[in-house]
Amino acid sequence: MGLKLLFNTLNFDYVPKNEIYSRIKSIQNILQVKNLDVLIITSKVNNYYFTGTNQEQILIIPANDPPTLFVKRDLERAKIESPLNIRNFKGFKDILSVIGSNKKIGLEYNYLTVKEFFKLQEIFGSNTTDISRDISLLRAVKSEWEIKTTKKAAAIAETTYTEAANYLKSGIREIEFGSILFSIAQKNGHEGFLRSASSHFEPVSWHILSGISGCIHGQYDAPASGLGLSPAFPNSASNKKIEPNEPIMVDFGISYMGYQVDTTRMYSIGEPDEKFYQIFQKAEKLQEVALRELTPGKPVKTAFQKSIEKAEELNILGNFLGIGKNRKKFIGHGIGLETTEYPIIAESFEDIVQENMLIAIEPKIVIENFGIIGIENTNLVSRDSTTSITNFLNNIIKVR
Amino acid sequence: MGLKLLFNTLNFDYVPKNEIYSRIKSIQNILQVKNLDVLIITSKVNNYYFTGTNQEQILIIPANDPPTLFVKRDLERAKIESPLNIRNFKGFKDILSVIGSNKKIGLEYNYLTVKEFFKLQEIFGSNTTDISRDISLLRAVKSEWEIKTTKKAAAIAETTYTEAANYLKSGIREIEFGSILFSIAQKNGHEGFLRSASSHFEPVSWHILSGISGCIHGQYDAPASGLGLSPAFPNSASNKKIEPNEPIMVDFGISYMGYQVDTTRMYSIGEPDEKFYQIFQKAEKLQEVALRELTPGKPVKTAFQKSIEKAEELNILGNFLGIGKNRKKFIGHGIGLETTEYPIIAESFEDIVQENMLIAIEPKIVIENFGIIGIENTNLVSRDSTTSITNFLNNIIKVR
Repeated sequence: MGLKLLFNTLNFDYVPKNEIYSRIKSIQNILQVKNLDVLIITSKVNNYYFTGTNQEQILIIPANDPPTLFVKRDLERAKIESPLNIRNFKGFKDILSVIGSNKKIGLEYNYLTVKEFFKLQEIFGSNTTDISRDISLLRAVKSEWEIKTTKKAAAIAETTYTEAANYLKSGIREIEFGSILFSIAQKNGHEGFLRSASSHFEPVSWHILSGISGCIHGQYDAPASGLGLSPAFPNSASNKKIEPNEPIMVDFGISYMGYQVDTTRMYSIGEPDEKFYQIFQKAEKLQEVALRELTPGKPVKTAFQKSIEKAEELNILGNFLGIGKNRKKFIGHGIGLETTEYPIIAESFEDIVQENMLIAIEPKIVIENFGIIGIENTNLVSRDSTTSITNFLNNIIKVR
Repeated sequence: MGLKLLFNTLNFDYVPKNEIYSRIKSIQNILQVKNLDVLIITSKVNNYYFTGTNQEQILIIPANDPPTLFVKRDLERAKIESPLNIRNFKGFKDILSVIGSNKKIGLEYNYLTVKEFFKLQEIFGSNTTDISRDISLLRAVKSEWEIKTTKKAAAIAETTYTEAANYLKSGIREIEFGSILFSIAQKNGHEGFLRSASSHFEPVSWHILSGISGCIHGQYDAPASGLGLSPAFPNSASNKKIEPNEPIMVDFGISYMGYQVDTTRMYSIGEPDEKFYQIFQKAEKLQEVALRELTPGKPVKTAFQKSIEKAEELNILGNFLGIGKNRKKFIGHGIGLETTEYPIIAESFEDIVQENMLIAIEPKIVIENFGIIGIENTNLVSRDSTTSITNFLNNIIKVR
């Protein structure tokens, strides 16, 4: 059976041609403004973004001419998935003949390793410029198709959280519950792997934090990130048993066609006690405030600042985003082909909210010796308001 | 509850102190030989290797003085897990005061992004040298403790393949079977995440290739790597339904305390037909030949060359490691804290086999319109012989 026929029998989806052409056009405009001759794309994530395929490949985008995609393998699959002009990669000489010598070249300094960088400079010359941030800003604003695709990831998240409730029971270990969640998500279409915009953040698809696990300050810029199973991967679920009445936080990233939604939901085995309820309501209010400030044209940090003010008003500031000196300084992040894309919703960032950004907002409150309580949704910035596209199971999910 | 007490209740393991000291000593010897003043370690994997902890941290190893570990967070956890001298990271100035100015500095060019590299050069000066390969070669030879730890990962693999047989049934989708396998592995201690030595290889923990899926030439240097669910992650299991009598290949990486085993097993729903049996026996013979050549002092490529000769003798060369022009050029790889570590067992590598290397050997045969058949074990190179440490379920696993 040919590859294309096999894809058809499996109902494979493709990135629409006009998406690819419009992304290429946008980055070419930037190349022209920056007076660069050509862009060389080597990262997995941007190769997929600009071509619709993700094989072993290098993409060349001249500022004024159509792009050429050099594919080492698999050429057949790349041709099915991408509308661009594709050539068989046989060596860098062919690419050099397309680019020409002594050109001003844009590169992705945030993905390229130093080893790869020196190799590219050796071949194409050292007149190179970082264009990482421009690509990130471009990717931060989503198209209609991207939003529609992300909503499919949201539907998988809803099914996953709903079905998972059937498996949560007293005494189950965090790691066991998490692995069941993951299995449900994959059966329903989650790709399992998440790409991350930070080279030092190793994104696991999910975190389970129950009771005291939610009070452990971790290495990431998140209020808590779990114990893990060993010092090698010191994050995410642990072997701790989940107990009745303690706050159980599930933070789950789901990918569909590479597009992610990020959500957090609270579970409780048995009736949550009054404290759990009250803190959860405060988290909801903090979410509300942040969303209200995420309107086009406003600085992203306003949403952060206003949520801090609100936390103070709610008398919870010392526990908001962590306890005391371990309090973190961000409440959300752009999301798309990568976890924690632009914009980062934090005090120290100067970016401006734009229409059609997808932004995860995650107010979380840590109570010593009790646990972490909060909520997270992936939200779409529209012209007049910002609303959740993960609008399901918004309350504490009670089991048995 | 304090963090250490919590670790105790969860039976957390630590990297032994003498492991850390001996690794530091080895790399200091290399620094001295290379006439470097100091090594700055920023990667996750090497931070763990040299310190025993893996928080947000930067490790400074002077050639002639004790190392200093600068930890941004979490300091408490780092102090529990690592025996090294630990300081709170407050900024690069403190690190500069430890290193001094105008030093000859070793860096990891294979992990550092260009962005990070320029930042480090700005602070510490541009007299930097790549020391990636030295660290990789050091890591390639395992200690007794590392071998013992890897054997625990092997035990998880055995349980996983055994239990998974209960869930394999006609009509189950590859992705569904894979997600169940993964869930079983995690319940039994698999950390879920695998680190990879190649910046462009995104390691999923498992591949399921059934029938025709095993004939699809992929982007990686492997005979087949699966279709995936979309163009975004075009590898691993797909939505294809698994049918009776077709070859079902499961290639699974398991991590325990960061140490991986890599294994491949064949399943069959119902009695495998004669062709399936015969090809499997050839794969076993190819494995045998490769292992025989992996003795200390021999070039790694000999194992590759001899397996090619054997494939010719077995009249299967045109299908060994892929079909025709898509045949790949490697049959194995070192394994440890990363998938596809040194040494790579291939024609084009000049490394020498050494005692106490752990090497995965994976002879695989692709038969057009039928599937992929093969075997993979993680093997320990001893003084006189190289033998599997994943010595379980060595035949085709038949279900129902």
